[in-house]
Amino acid sequence: MSFNSFGRMLRFTTWGESHGPALGVVIDGCPPGIILRAEDIQIALDKRKPGTSKFVTQRKEPDEVKILSGVFEDDRTDGPRTTGTPISLMIDNVDQRSKDYSDIRDKYRPGHADYTYDAKYGFRDYRGGGRSSARETAARVAAGVVAEKILAHVFDSAVWIRASMVQMGPYKIDRDNFDWMNVDKNPFWCADAKAAELWAEKLDEARKSGSSFGAVIEVVASGVPAGLGAPVYGKLDADLASAMMSINAVKGVEIGAGMEAAALTGEENADEIRMKNGAPHFLSNKAGGILGGISSGQDIVARFAVKPTSSILTPRRTITSKGEETTIQTKGRHDPCVGIRGVPVGIAMMALVLADHALIHRAQCG
Amino acid sequence: MSFNSFGRMLRFTTWGESHGPALGVVIDGCPPGIILRAEDIQIALDKRKPGTSKFVTQRKEPDEVKILSGVFEDDRTDGPRTTGTPISLMIDNVDQRSKDYSDIRDKYRPGHADYTYDAKYGFRDYRGGGRSSARETAARVAAGVVAEKILAHVFDSAVWIRASMVQMGPYKIDRDNFDWMNVDKNPFWCADAKAAELWAEKLDEARKSGSSFGAVIEVVASGVPAGLGAPVYGKLDADLASAMMSINAVKGVEIGAGMEAAALTGEENADEIRMKNGAPHFLSNKAGGILGGISSGQDIVARFAVKPTSSILTPRRTITSKGEETTIQTKGRHDPCVGIRGVPVGIAMMALVLADHALIHRAQCG
Amino acid sequence: MSFNSFGRMLRFTTWGESHGPALGVVIDGCPPGIILRAEDIQIALDKRKPGTSKFVTQRKEPDEVKILSGVFEDDRTDGPRTTGTPISLMIDNVDQRSKDYSDIRDKYRPGHADYTYDAKYGFRDYRGGGRSSARETAARVAAGVVAEKILAHVFDSAVWIRASMVQMGPYKIDRDNFDWMNVDKNPFWCADAKAAELWAEKLDEARKSGSSFGAVIEVVASGVPAGLGAPVYGKLDADLASAMMSINAVKGVEIGAGMEAAALTGEENADEIRMKNGAPHFLSNKAGGILGGISSGQDIVARFAVKPTSSILTPRRTITSKGEETTIQTKGRHDPCVGIRGVPVGIAMMALVLADHALIHRAQCG
Amino acid sequence: MSFNSFGRMLRFTTWGESHGPALGVVIDGCPPGIILRAEDIQIALDKRKPGTSKFVTQRKEPDEVKILSGVFEDDRTDGPRTTGTPISLMIDNVDQRSKDYSDIRDKYRPGHADYTYDAKYGFRDYRGGGRSSARETAARVAAGVVAEKILAHVFDSAVWIRASMVQMGPYKIDRDNFDWMNVDKNPFWCADAKAAELWAEKLDEARKSGSSFGAVIEVVASGVPAGLGAPVYGKLDADLASAMMSINAVKGVEIGAGMEAAALTGEENADEIRMKNGAPHFLSNKAGGILGGISSGQDIVARFAVKPTSSILTPRRTITSKGEETTIQTKGRHDPCVGIRGVPVGIAMMALVLADHALIHRAQCG
Repeated sequence: MSFNSFGRMLRFTTWGESHGPALGVVIDGCPPGIILRAEDIQIALDKRKPGTSKFVTQRKEPDEVKILSGVFEDDRTDGPRTTGTPISLMIDNVDQRSKDYSDIRDKYRPGHADYTYDAKYGFRDYRGGGRSSARETAARVAAGVVAEKILAHVFDSAVWIRASMVQMGPYKIDRDNFDWMNVDKNPFWCADAKAAELWAEKLDEARKSGSSFGAVIEVVASGVPAGLGAPVYGKLDADLASAMMSINAVKGVEIGAGMEAAALTGEENADEIRMKNGAPHFLSNKAGGILGGISSGQDIVARFAVKPTSSILTPRRTITSKGEETTIQTKGRHDPCVGIRGVPVGIAMMALVLADHALIHRAQCG
Repeated sequence: MSFNSFGRMLRFTTWGESHGPALGVVIDGCPPGIILRAEDIQIALDKRKPGTSKFVTQRKEPDEVKILSGVFEDDRTDGPRTTGTPISLMIDNVDQRSKDYSDIRDKYRPGHADYTYDAKYGFRDYRGGGRSSARETAARVAAGVVAEKILAHVFDSAVWIRASMVQMGPYKIDRDNFDWMNVDKNPFWCADAKAAELWAEKLDEARKSGSSFGAVIEVVASGVPAGLGAPVYGKLDADLASAMMSINAVKGVEIGAGMEAAALTGEENADEIRMKNGAPHFLSNKAGGILGGISSGQDIVARFAVKPTSSILTPRRTITSKGEETTIQTKGRHDPCVGIRGVPVGIAMMALVLADHALIHRAQCG
Repeated sequence: MSFNSFGRMLRFTTWGESHGPALGVVIDGCPPGIILRAEDIQIALDKRKPGTSKFVTQRKEPDEVKILSGVFEDDRTDGPRTTGTPISLMIDNVDQRSKDYSDIRDKYRPGHADYTYDAKYGFRDYRGGGRSSARETAARVAAGVVAEKILAHVFDSAVWIRASMVQMGPYKIDRDNFDWMNVDKNPFWCADAKAAELWAEKLDEARKSGSSFGAVIEVVASGVPAGLGAPVYGKLDADLASAMMSINAVKGVEIGAGMEAAALTGEENADEIRMKNGAPHFLSNKAGGILGGISSGQDIVARFAVKPTSSILTPRRTITSKGEETTIQTKGRHDPCVGIRGVPVGIAMMALVLADHALIHRAQCG
Repeated sequence: MSFNSFGRMLRFTTWGESHGPALGVVIDGCPPGIILRAEDIQIALDKRKPGTSKFVTQRKEPDEVKILSGVFEDDRTDGPRTTGTPISLMIDNVDQRSKDYSDIRDKYRPGHADYTYDAKYGFRDYRGGGRSSARETAARVAAGVVAEKILAHVFDSAVWIRASMVQMGPYKIDRDNFDWMNVDKNPFWCADAKAAELWAEKLDEARKSGSSFGAVIEVVASGVPAGLGAPVYGKLDADLASAMMSINAVKGVEIGAGMEAAALTGEENADEIRMKNGAPHFLSNKAGGILGGISSGQDIVARFAVKPTSSILTPRRTITSKGEETTIQTKGRHDPCVGIRGVPVGIAMMALVLADHALIHRAQCG
C-alpha cells in the first residue's frame, strides 16, 4: 500500500510539494530496452507547464526534467535505453516566490484542501497548497510519456491517445464541429474551433473579474486492442475512474455514455455488432470501448469534470485555523480555468492505466 | 496485486461465478473483538437478493450466508467476535437452472462482456454471465456489513450510510420531495415517493415490452469525521470512484456536484465556512464532503449511473464467436432495471471504502 | 496489503482456523486455459495430510478439496480449464474433536503462539491453535499444485521441484547417499535411505518419551530458466525467504551455501562459469541458482529449519492468561517432528514463488 | 506491486545505479509531526559510507543526503517536521570514476549479477554493478533513520536496535566476550573486542592477497512491545527474512535459534515463561522474540550471512557475453569483507520492518 503510488504492474510514485525544492516521480516496472530521452518527456511537460497563455497561471516554471536512473547508454546502444530498473525523474521548482503566506497560513480557503489537511495531519505545508497543489501533476505528465512509450513497445499497432476540452463553464462544444486537428490550435486544447473562440472571450471576462470556470475534458484512446482490463476490481474502467478522480479538482468521471447512460433504454444503449474487414465492428460506442471491465477494441472514451478554480478574487466567508470567522480573497497567480492544464494530465493518466494493463495482460494471457 | 481484491488496509477478495456451486468473499484486516453474526449479514443480503419484486430478476436465490472463519465464540465472549484473522463468507448458488445455454454460448450479447471475456481469456464460463454476472455483488454486500461494523467500532459517533435511486431512465426525482423515510417503502429504494409511483408505472411498461431502463443511485454517508483519505492516489474520492465504477454496468461516478461542477463559477462552487457549535460548518456541499481527497466532516455524497440492462427481448444485431453475423434476443429472468439492486451494493462499497480509510487513518495519524 | 495473501502477480489468500468448519484458499491471477481437476490437487494434499504414519499427528482428516470457482468445462473443452478468474478451493475440517480445551484456553503453551495472539488481538480461537495451526498449510499445498501447473504452462522446458528432509534433530544426512529416488520410500521424504532408518529409530524413542525433534528441509527446483526475479525488493531469494519463513515453526532460511557462505573465501564462493552445449555452465552452485536476486538457470536450492514441535508431554513452566505461574503438559495428537509434514509445504511455496515470478517476467520482459 | 519498494503501511521505494548521477528513496506512509533533519540521517549514512577504514572500499563518496519533500518548518514549528506526505531523499554520486569498464562490460564476473541481469533484461548498466551494486543500500540506511524516528513516535518505551558482526570468515565471536559497548570501537562493529583484533589481522592478510571473507551479522531490537506482526503472510519474521535476504550478497537469514533450532529437542527449544515485575518473563529466547509471527516482548534477534565479496584479485574462469570462455580478475576499489558495511544496513532493515508493523498494529488493533 502506498498512498502516493498508482498502478499495478507499472507502478509510479510521485513526491514533492508546490514550493519545496523539487518534485518528481519514480516509475517501477518499465520493460527494458525502450529508448527514453529527457527531451521526449520535455515536449509533454511543456504542454502542461504554467505561463503558456493568459488563461493559465503566470508562475514561471521551466519544468525541466532530469532522468536520474533507469536508463543506460553506451557505444553499443543506439540511445539511452531503459534497463528495467526504476526510472527516477526530477523537476526543480524554480519560481516558488518567497511571498507573504500569512493569509493562507491562517485561513482556510473555501474549496481548497487547507482545512482537511489540517484536520488530518495536524499541520501542513501551506505554501502554494503544498502537496495538494496541481503542481504534482507535472510528475504524472512526465510518467505518462514513459507509459506511451511502453504502449508502443508492447503493441504492434499504434495506440493513439488524444484529449479535448469539451465544456468550459456552461459552454459545451458542438459535436458537429469536432475535429482533432483543432486541438493544438487554441489555448484550450479544444477540438471545436468555434467553441474555443467563445471560451476565450468568456474566460477573459472571468479572469478580469477574478472569477473562474470549471471544465469537462474528454480523453480518447484509439488502437487499443481488445482484452485489456482485469475484472472485477482491476477493471479497466475502475482503474480509469480512480486515475481521473485522483487529478486535482475532479468531481466526476464518465466512461462512454457516462451519466447519460441512465437515461437510455436497453435498446439505445447496447452497441450492436457487425463484421467489418474480418473483425468485429460495433455500430455505436455507448460503452466507451469497455465491456465488463475489459477493452473491446473500440475507442476508449473517458471524460472528467474539473471544478472551477477555488482561488478567486471575490471575497468568501471562511474561518481561521483557530476557529474564528473571517473572509478571504485569494490574490496571486492562478488559473482562471484549471481544467485547461488538466488536458495533458488526462492523457497521461489514460496512458498510464493502459500501459499498466498492457503489461498485466501480457503476464496473465501471454 | 490482486484483480479480485479491493481495499488497502481492509482488503476483501471475492470469488465465484453466476452458475458455479457457490460464491464468496474473504475479508482481511478486520480488527478483532467485533461481534459478527450471520444474521447481521443476512439482513443486508435480503435487500439485494433477486425475486423481491416484479421489477427484479425472478431467479430464486435464498442467498444464505455462512461464516467459515475469522470469528470465535466461547463462554467468555458475549457472541461470536472477530479474531483479527480472515473472515471467509460463502453463499451457495441454488437456482442455477440447468437450461439451454447454446444461444449465449455461441453469440455475443451486445452490451454484455461476452465478447471481451472471450477476447481476453480465449474462452469463458458463459452460464449466466459467469464471473461478469451481477451476482458477484452479493459478496460485496456481505462484506459491506463487516465494514459498517468496523466503522461503528472505530468511531465514537455513528456513521450512517444511506442510498436512494434518484433517477430511473429519463425520470429524475424532485429534490423537494426527498425524504430518507421513503426509501424502505417502495421497491426502488427511492427517497421521493411520487417519483417511485411514476417509475413503477414506467418500468412495468418497459418490463412488459421487453425493454429496460438505466438508473442513477446516490449514496450518502453522514457522521464521517474529517480527516479520512490519503492523498494523492489514495484519495477518498479516487477510491470511491474505483469502488463504484467496479460495480457491474456503472458508466459514471460523481462526488458532490459531480459533472455539474464544470458549469459552476468559482463563487458558486466553493463551499463557504462558518462556525457552528464550536465546529466548522459549511454553508453548502458542492464538494460532496471531500476536499483534496480528504473528508471534511460534511456528508460524503457519491452518485453513480447504471446503464440499462443489456438483456432485452428486442432482437439486436450481433456476431457469433466464429465471426458470423446474426441476431440475438435475450429471454429468461432479467432485471428490467438492474440499477434497483445496485442500491445496497452502493451502500456496501461506500462502507468498505470508509472503513478502509478509517483504519488507514488510525495507522498514520494515531 | 493483505496479511493472509502471498504473491505479486499470482496472489493467493488463505483462510480458516484449525477447528473451524473449513479452511481454504483463493488464487488470483492464474492464466486461463490450464486443465485443473480436484484430483490433481488431492494427490499433493494426501502427501501432507495427517495420520499417514506413526510419526505424524493421528488427527483423521480426509482433506478432501473442492474447487468452487475459476474453472469451467463444457463439451468444447477437454477437461475443466481455468478461466482466468479466481480459483476458490475449500477443504472441510472433519475431525475437530470437541474435546476439553480448558487447559490451552487458560494457559500459554511455551513455544506456541498462544501468548502473542492474546497480546495482539485481545482474545483468540484457542481450539487446536486456531489460525496459528499448521493446518493452514493444507491450503498452501493445494495452491502449490496450481502453481506447478502454471509453471508447466508458461515454460517450454519442465520445471521439477523436489524436496528432502536433510536433517532431523542433530542427525544430518550423508550427501554421498543422496538419491532423489529414495524420497518416496520412507516416511521422512528423505533422500538418504540410511539416515531415514536412523531417524525412524530416534523419532520413535522421542515419540514414546513425549519429546520432539526439529528438522531441516531442502527444496530444489530444476529446469528454471535464467531471468526470474525482480531486484531489489522482489528478488527471487527475498521472496523465497519470506515464503519459507512464513511456514509454521520455521526459524531459518538458506539459499545455496546459506549460513555457511560466511565461512567461505571469495575464491571458494564464486561459482566459475564455462560453456557446455552452447549454454553457460557453472562449475559449482554456492549461489543456489540465484545471483543478484535473479535465477541463473542452475538448480534453485533453498533450505529451511523447522523447530521441534512445542507440544510435548514433558511439563513446562508457563503462566496463565491471568498472569499466574503454572506448568503445562501438552497431551493429544501431535507430530513428534512437524518438519516431516513441512516437506510438501516447502515444495508448494517454491512452486508459488516461481510461478509468480514466471508471470512477472512475462509481463516485464515479454 | 513494485519491485523496488518494501513495506506495507510504511512503504519505501529506492532508485538509482552505482554510477548514475544520484540515488535515492521515497518514503510513503510516515506519520506527520515527526522532527526530521538531514543531519539526523547523515549520522547513520556516515557509518555505512565507503572509505572509513582500510577494510572497506576506498571509493570516495561523501554520501550527503538531501531532503526534497515531506517535511515543513515555519515559525510555528520547532524544527522541520514530517507532514504525512512522501519524504524524498537523494544522495548524489560523486566518485563514479570514469574508468575503463570494458572488462566487466564484456565478461560475466563469477558471483556477481552480471550474467543474470543480462539474461533477464537483455542489457545492463555494467558500471560498478549498476542497480545490483551495494550502493543501493545507502538509500535503505537513510530510510532506516526515518523508521527509527517513527518507532520513537509510536511507542512510549524506547525501541533500541543494535547490531554486531558475529562471524568473519570461519572466525566466530566468543559469546562470553559479547558487550554492546565494543561495537563502536572497532571497524567491524563487533561486540567482541578480541575477535575484532583477530579479524583485523586475518582481513588484512586477505586484503593484501586479493581474497575476501564472508560474515554473519546479528541485529537485536530491544524494547519492542508484544503484539507486532500480522499472521500468516505478514508475519514479523517473514517480513524480516525478506528484508534481510534482499540485502546484497545475503544467503541466509535466521531468527532466534535459527538453523540450529533443527538440532534442539522440544524441551530445549520451548522458552518457558514466568512472571517478573507483573509481566511475562521468558527464561530463554530460542524464539528470537517472535512466536506465530508476532513479537513476544522479548528481544527480536535476527542474523544474516553475507557471502564473501565476489570481486577478488585471483583470476576466475568465466565466459563473455558472447559465450566465449575466458578468465577475469577484478581490480579496483572493493570491500575485502562487504559484510562490514552490512551492519548499518541490517539495523535499517530491522527498523523499517518494525516501524511498518507498528503502524499496521495501530490500524488493526487501535
